[in-house]
Amino acid sequence: MLERYKILDTDEINQALSELSGWELEKDGLKHEFKFHNFIEAFAFLTKVAICAEKFNHHPEIFNSYNKVIIKGLCTHYAGSKITTLDIDLAKEISKL
Amino acid sequence: MLERYKILDTDEINQALSELSGWELEKDGLKHEFKFHNFIEAFAFLTKVAICAEKFNHHPEIFNSYNKVIIKGLCTHYAGSKITTLDIDLAKEISKL
Repeated sequence: MLERYKILDTDEINQALSELSGWELEKDGLKHEFKFHNFIEAFAFLTKVAICAEKFNHHPEIFNSYNKVIIKGLCTHYAGSKITTLDIDLAKEISKL
Repeated sequence: MLERYKILDTDEINQALSELSGWELEKDGLKHEFKFHNFIEAFAFLTKVAICAEKFNHHPEIFNSYNKVIIKGLCTHYAGSKITTLDIDLAKEISKL
């Protein structure tokens, strides 16, 4: 398995999440909820997430309801839907947006 | 109440849906699932939906998972979350995209 997909153990996930604000681990992967002033801002953010996800060739689930955005199900299907370094790298990129 | 928000009765909703392919009525509003070849196509469609929704000032819920898009919860909050002519008009616009 390439380093890109290195599976993280619980300690490593917790360590990574402690350095990332707002992300939490759910059964189906990492999740983050975001709130914006309005729909235009929410969708502008989603567009950045989309370009970022395509660049990583790694696509979490996206939910939007007016000014609310939820990014969820962030895990690595190629690695048995476990959390890998790739998920943490994408989470970091999304948090930077 | 303005004509823009005219509440439709069951017969009117069924009549409207019979003229619209793929839309179904759920508890929380109208819903349509779409499948695309890949994420780029799915998100390009979502971007058109977003612009359309903002133009209508009427924003359904949006869900995306790679090549899958779900538009749901399309109802009119200003009209007690009932289905109105506005919902049908937006559904028609989305179907045309």
